[in-house]
This record gives sequence, C-alpha cells and structure tokens, in this order.
Amino acid sequence: MTLDAVLARIDADLPQAVERLQELLRIPSISTDPAYKEACAKAADWLVADLAGLGFDASARATPGHPMVVAHGGTGSGTHLLFYGHYDVQPVDPLSLWTRDPFDPVVEDTPKGKVLRGRGTSDDKGQLMTFVEACRAWKAVHGSLPGKLTIFFEGEEESGSPSLIPFLKANAAELKADVALICDTGLYEGRTPAITTMLRGLLGEEFTIRAASRDLHSGMYGGLAQNPIHVLSRILAGLRDETGRIQVPGFYDGVTELSDDLRAQWQGLAFDHARFLGDVGLSVPAGEVDRTPLEKLWARPTAEVNGIWGGYTGDGFKTVLPGEAHAKVSFRLVGTQDPLKLRDAFRAWVTAQLPEDCSVEWKEHGAGPASVMEIDHPAFAAARQALTEEWAQPAVFVGAGGSIPVAGYFKTYLGLDAILMGFAKDDDQIHSPNEKYDLESFHKGIRSWARVLEKLA
Amino acid sequence: MTLDAVLARIDADLPQAVERLQELLRIPSISTDPAYKEACAKAADWLVADLAGLGFDASARATPGHPMVVAHGGTGSGTHLLFYGHYDVQPVDPLSLWTRDPFDPVVEDTPKGKVLRGRGTSDDKGQLMTFVEACRAWKAVHGSLPGKLTIFFEGEEESGSPSLIPFLKANAAELKADVALICDTGLYEGRTPAITTMLRGLLGEEFTIRAASRDLHSGMYGGLAQNPIHVLSRILAGLRDETGRIQVPGFYDGVTELSDDLRAQWQGLAFDHARFLGDVGLSVPAGEVDRTPLEKLWARPTAEVNGIWGGYTGDGFKTVLPGEAHAKVSFRLVGTQDPLKLRDAFRAWVTAQLPEDCSVEWKEHGAGPASVMEIDHPAFAAARQALTEEWAQPAVFVGAGGSIPVAGYFKTYLGLDAILMGFAKDDDQIHSPNEKYDLESFHKGIRSWARVLEKLA
Repeated sequence: MTLDAVLARIDADLPQAVERLQELLRIPSISTDPAYKEACAKAADWLVADLAGLGFDASARATPGHPMVVAHGGTGSGTHLLFYGHYDVQPVDPLSLWTRDPFDPVVEDTPKGKVLRGRGTSDDKGQLMTFVEACRAWKAVHGSLPGKLTIFFEGEEESGSPSLIPFLKANAAELKADVALICDTGLYEGRTPAITTMLRGLLGEEFTIRAASRDLHSGMYGGLAQNPIHVLSRILAGLRDETGRIQVPGFYDGVTELSDDLRAQWQGLAFDHARFLGDVGLSVPAGEVDRTPLEKLWARPTAEVNGIWGGYTGDGFKTVLPGEAHAKVSFRLVGTQDPLKLRDAFRAWVTAQLPEDCSVEWKEHGAGPASVMEIDHPAFAAARQALTEEWAQPAVFVGAGGSIPVAGYFKTYLGLDAILMGFAKDDDQIHSPNEKYDLESFHKGIRSWARVLEKLA
Repeated sequence: MTLDAVLARIDADLPQAVERLQELLRIPSISTDPAYKEACAKAADWLVADLAGLGFDASARATPGHPMVVAHGGTGSGTHLLFYGHYDVQPVDPLSLWTRDPFDPVVEDTPKGKVLRGRGTSDDKGQLMTFVEACRAWKAVHGSLPGKLTIFFEGEEESGSPSLIPFLKANAAELKADVALICDTGLYEGRTPAITTMLRGLLGEEFTIRAASRDLHSGMYGGLAQNPIHVLSRILAGLRDETGRIQVPGFYDGVTELSDDLRAQWQGLAFDHARFLGDVGLSVPAGEVDRTPLEKLWARPTAEVNGIWGGYTGDGFKTVLPGEAHAKVSFRLVGTQDPLKLRDAFRAWVTAQLPEDCSVEWKEHGAGPASVMEIDHPAFAAARQALTEEWAQPAVFVGAGGSIPVAGYFKTYLGLDAILMGFAKDDDQIHSPNEKYDLESFHKGIRSWARVLEKLA
C-alpha cells in the first residue's frame, strides 16, 4: 500500500525534516517590527526555494508589507487543495525570560518528551512545515505531488495581515481551489486531534490620549492639570462592568447563543478549566460571570488591554505629569459581530468620555470577523477520518478562542470553506517566551497530512 | 560702597560664570539611572574643586548612593548660613523631543530673552551656581568670603534622596548653622521675587500587579484569565472620585485649611490660571472641584500616576495577555499629613482591591512631609528686603506645589528654618524636554545672593 510507503518515508526522514525546520526557524521573521523586514523576505525566499525543489511553481510575491509565497503543483481530478500557513512570528520580548536564544532552536528532552524550542516552532513555522514535509515524502515515494495543490504562505499574520485582503482580491482567480487547509491550530487539550470549525474574529485598536502639550512637573502642575494616565485608566476600567459585560454600546449585536447541540457536544469534552488555568498560575475563571469556561474561550466576545504605557517607566522615579498615555486593546469577536461597526462604536465610546482639554488619536491593527465553517463539504469528513486513523482516537470538531482571520477572508474573497487542523499543544507558549513544538506534533502532523492527501488529492 | 563693587564684579564676570555653569551642565548627572553613577561622582568632584578654589574646605563625602558635597568657609560673628542645592538632574527621555543635546547647553536668543537650554540649567545646577558665583565675586572684591558659610550639595534629590536623612543625622553637628538657604524654587509668575514658606511633601510609590505566571495569548486565554492591566486600571481609576477627592482611607488626616489671612494674601496675587494652563495647551482646571487653582497647587494634597506600563508597548500589535502590569504613583502632601502612615494606607487600599489570583509587589521612592516655615527669624525679613532691592519690586511669601523634602529634614534633623528663594520661571520646563534657565534669572540671581550675603553674613 502506497500510503504505508509514504508514512515509512516520513518516519525515516524525520531527522532531516527537523534540520530543515531549524534552518527556517533561525530566520527571525518578526513581522510587526520594521527592524526585521529583511528577515521576513529571507524566510519567504527560503520557502520558495524549498517548494521549487519539490517541483512546485513557487514565487515570493511583493506586497506593500512582507511578501506572500504562492506555489502551484501537481495535477489530477481530485479535490484541489489550498494550503495556508504563515512564516512570520511574534516578537520575543522579554528576551530575559527565554532559557535560550529564541532564534537558535534545538531539540530538548523534557519530562513530557522531545520538543523543539524557539520562536515560531509552534506558531506557525513548525506547523506549516508539516504539510511541506508530507508533500516531500509523497514526492519521494511517488515521484510526483499528490494531486492539484496550491500553497499560500503569508508573512503578516502576527501583525494584523494588512496586505492579505488586497492580495486575495487581486489574485482570487489564481488562488481558487475546492477547499482550504489551514494549519495554525492545535490538538484539543494537547492530545485529541481536532478540526476547528468556529473561530473568534479580532479587532485591534491602539490609541493615544493627549492632554498638556508637553510633559509637566507633577509638583508644579499636579492637582490642576489633567493627567492623561488617569483619563486612560478611567476609560479602560469602564470597558467591562462588574459582571464582565463589555460596555461599548452595540457590542453584543450579532453575538449568537450556542445551539443546544453544540453546547451538549462541548460539555462532552469535559474541559478541565482548573488544569487549564492552573498551568499558568491561576485558579479562578475571570470574565463574564454567567458563562461556562469553554464558552468564554470559544463562543463569547472579549475586550482585553494588550499593552499600556505612559509617563516615566524606567528605573527609579520621575515626578512627571505626562502629556500623553497609550493603550493597545483587542476585541475577540463571535457570530456575526461586525468588526468595522465595532471599531466605530469603540472609538465613539472612548471619545465621548474624554474630559475637556483631552484628545485622542487612533491607529488600527486589523479587523476580522469570526468564522463559522459549513462542515457539509465531504472534505471535512475525510480530514476527520484521516486524523482519527493517525491518532488512533476519534477526532472532534471544536471552537477556538484565537482569531485566524484568514479563514473568514478565504470564505469572503475565495468562496472557500477551510479545514483548520493543526498539532499545537496548549503548553506550547506561543506568543510567550520559551515557545516550543513537540516533536510528536511535528512527526504525527506530517503523517496526518499524508493521510489527508491520500484521501482528498 | 563695597556691595556696589561686588555687584559690578558680578556684571563683568557674567560670561565667565556662564562658561563655568556650562562645564557643570555637560556632566550628565542623572541620579535615578544607575548608568550615570560615574557622572554624578564627576559632578560632585567638579563642585569640590570649584569651591576649594574659592577657599572653602570642601570635600565629596561618600554615601551608599551618590556623594554629598560639603564645604566650610569664612569667619565672622554674623549669621552662619547653610546653603543647599542639588547637582543631580532628571532623566532626559523622550530624547526625541529635545531641540538639541540636553547635555551640551548653549545660550540661545529667544523672543523672551537669552536662555541657557539643557538638562539641569534651571533644576538645579544653574540655581546652585548663583550662590557660588556670588561668593566668588565677594571673594574677588574683598579677598575673603562674606562671613561663616557652609555649603551642602546633594546628588540624589531627583531620585528620592535615599541617603539624605542618614547623612544629616550622622553629620548634624558639622552642618549646624543659624539658618538655611535653599535655592531650588522660582520667581512668582516668572517675574516677582518670592520666598517660599509652604511646600508640599511627597510620597512616591511603585507597584507591580501580577496575575498569570507568564504572558498569555489573549486568543487562547482572553475572557477566562485575569488581565493585570484591567486590575491596575480599575484601581487607578478609583484613586479619585468624580469631584477629584482622593479615595484612600485616612488620606485627608492632617490636611489643614488655609488661614483667612493667607487666603486673602494669595487672592491678592491674582493668579492667572488661564495663562498658567494655557502655556501648556490646557484650559480647564482639573482636580478637586471645590478649590481655587492656587489652593490646589500650593495647599491641597494630590495623587498622580507618573508612569504606567504593561503588556506589549512596541511598534505594531501583539495580542498578549500580560502576566504583570506596573505603575508609579506620587502623592503631594500638605499640613501634617504623615507620609509613612499614608504609604501604609495606600498599600492596604490597593491590596484590598485585588481579585483572586492577583498579587502586588511594592517599591518605595521616598516619603517626605510638607514644610511650613516659621518666618519670624530676622533672616526672612532681610532676604525679602534683599530681593525687593534687586528686583525693584516687593518680594512675596508664597507656597509651592513641588516638594523639597530637604526643607523639612533641615527642620527635623538640624533644627533649622529654611529660606527658600530661587529664580526659576514657570516656563523653564524643568523635568521636561528643552529645560532652560533665563540668563536674567542667573544674573540677577547671583546679584540677589550678593545682597543677601551683605545683610546676613
């Protein structure tokens, strides 16, 4: 059986696959920081070269930001698949909390097994390479790619994907396929293979509140001049009420309640929130008081301050009454919440609370709606079956708290439903210091894709 | 008349006095930042050398922090004066807002006259040199110093004066005098010579609120995990109520109301708060709603957040749910408010508001009570007379919003009342970018001290 040959090839080639991934991980492709622009281009070029070596017609495509990688390969009358991943990574600060150089990843032995530690191992370079390695093994065994494939790698996922919609619009015909595969999600509770069919959207906003035209001495002006940190604190403190309900007018428009069916299915998952929170030193669920923990994570909208700064933040003390204060705020969206309407509503809500002499300036950091997949396409059943076989346990359909706006964009601009499957674990510490990816995730991830390709392509 | 000779000498020597001050200003003695420790020592040594050249028995005295400069000189049976200034300066960030290198000061022509621009020009190197230059001119004319003088320069005023009280305690006998002179204040409204007889105290606190044991992904944990920025915002938002009243229990214990007399005197000053605020781009007095602007600045306690930070504060966006958030808060104190009691009360008040899973860690940044001078000592009348003569207009007794804790310490540890007179202007931008000191302040400041010395020493 040829699938067995492909799987055997994957097993034998694993050490080389890890080395290839390490090479990609050494490129510090932090998309949000302009200092790493060259590194992003280098990562894109690395992928183009690797895909070309597998027989893909691959190219890096310029955008106003970081390049997209597009590759076409294979032939046949099976399902035409569009595979998506992103080669950009999160910043690494605070660097002091890393146990080693985030961009010099090695395989470490841990009590839970071998892991590859470094920025991007799990999110998303390790994951996107699972698919590339599955194609490589297939090619090695069969001499050709497994059917019609389009590969599409983005380099701006961690910085709000500013170029994505224009690129999809401009290249919709070229990117058209039968179904999309997105590898940027995880195993349920770190062990159960899962396909994510519900994803929260994301609205990212940054704003600066200004009062005095310059920084003031708090002794000379304190008590008489407006302090923008106080104004900002008061606004942020009012973002949620005592019950965790978000106070922006109209915020809950489009938020749908769980169906009884889905609620029952999720109850069956027996989510252990004590363990989930305990892993990060917490014990008590925060947020909305009248919702279950899993519902809060997968099916409820949120408002979180992701960054705040103002005044003197260095060593020691400075009795400054600052001229401005800043915050970065993100909203996770569900159902049919409209991110652009919410942006307007949030800005109006903040502006209405400004005292005299204060002004506000805005910066946008992305706006993507939530995604709810139509799981009737036969590819969903096939993928679920492939996962079930590889992991020797039933794969499940789940929700996800994180936002993968591209899934919504594929639906809007390419008319494609997306099968979101990935092999990350809850303790991968993505976006945090000491990010890692289990070698098991990488290995069985490659094997899982080989099985999916065999069924679909 | 010998005073005239001294004043003439001061006038003739002004260009050289400016050059000496520039030399001192070029030493970046930022006391709060450990990176400038050597620079602080260098500034102290520079002053020791200069004072020794005038015949003082001068030395830099080691402390656990930055050195103190102590110098004794002169003889005579007149009033023994203890002159205080500080040679350390504030940090210069944000550096990008300076029009030139803050540590390479030059004389600039401005529409309002010549100014010396740079960090420390007004606070306090320019001011302390007014006294040194007055002594120099006296020595040049008379061949000796004008009576018994002790000079005492501190190097930690801008960083909470951690070594000051131990030093005063250990050297009380050596530092004993009849009255203290402190040059770290300004002209009233930039033109009227003034002696400050009421000073607010200062309590500086820094705290960190912690929740999760590490930074989290806001998609994965948002809505379920406690966000310490929200906790911090809520606490800071509650620091003052809608009327500007500070909410820490017991905060107003020891806050005294103005005497009818003083209230009338201050009304006579016709404080132009519209101009005062207008100079910095503001128009509406903030703070307590039922107090006059001058009362808020000089006679009411305050609570101001001087710095806040947490989460991702760099370019772009990072959907982090941070593990900790930080704030620096200062309180201006009046009357007999007890800074140590208030520290306890503030900490208890914050701690009581922490939700489950959150903890707080504290750092102290100084605690000094308010000072109210006993103005019966004849030196006050003499100093007022000297100022009135030099500036050709009646000098006034005023309050001050800023804290000069040393005035209180001199009273407590040396039994000395202090005459606080200085020549800074409201638009000197101390603690801010582009700090400056008017050449007129420097010149007439030196002449003012010469007149004071002639009357007292």
